[in-house]
Amino acid sequence: MNNDILDKITFDTGGLVPAIAQQHDTGEVLMMAWMNRDAVLETLEKGQVCYWSRSRGKLWRKGESSGHVQRLVNFRIDCDGDTLLLLVDQTGVACHTGRHNCFFQSVRDGEVEIISEVEISPDEMYGNKSGGK
Amino acid sequence: MNNDILDKITFDTGGLVPAIAQQHDTGEVLMMAWMNRDAVLETLEKGQVCYWSRSRGKLWRKGESSGHVQRLVNFRIDCDGDTLLLLVDQTGVACHTGRHNCFFQSVRDGEVEIISEVEISPDEMYGNKSGGK
Repeated sequence: MNNDILDKITFDTGGLVPAIAQQHDTGEVLMMAWMNRDAVLETLEKGQVCYWSRSRGKLWRKGESSGHVQRLVNFRIDCDGDTLLLLVDQTGVACHTGRHNCFFQSVRDGEVEIISEVEISPDEMYGNKSGGK
Repeated sequence: MNNDILDKITFDTGGLVPAIAQQHDTGEVLMMAWMNRDAVLETLEKGQVCYWSRSRGKLWRKGESSGHVQRLVNFRIDCDGDTLLLLVDQTGVACHTGRHNCFFQSVRDGEVEIISEVEISPDEMYGNKSGGK
């Protein structure tokens, strides 16, 4: 039945669709990442969010190395089928910088200002391994 | 000074960046669309959201034909600079179907369910002209 859902989604020429993750109870927009068909199916089946990492060219089970997983609460598709909105319950932080969400650069008076603090250092989050979102 | 902001944004190979519009006071995610450099500059300068229409290949001054404009409240850039979050004040409805937001298809028990009503008919919104978001 999840294949019927795939039919409602318009993947781009690279086979991907953007997916916005929003914290289900606070409305905080956490991040935006990409999904391919397999990532959509796995997310719907397991109820745990899985993206497609464009940089690594493979499935990205969010939180696999950091433990900062996203439990799927609701899966929504937009009017054109070319964007997804995932209502999630975020464990820990969503951003690889250790901030709660990725949108911490805010424009004020023509300047970019950092508006949120690092909650967990990336070293701690990834066990001193560099990189890895 | 807005050119410094452009330097923080990573446009894709087509010169575009995805922009999520969120109602600033309720947290409702309204829509996702695309911006090029000119759309970013115009949005920052005028304080009224302007996208790039991929289907029409031109600047899309949101609400120009419907009156359903988005006033920019805050402009945010994500950690990688490749996604924007626009906090806006939406006049009327954001979706070309006449719904308040574009994410009205919700997956429940493996089926897609429509979870919001049309508030304004597209005919009324676009003065009986077809199409046009």
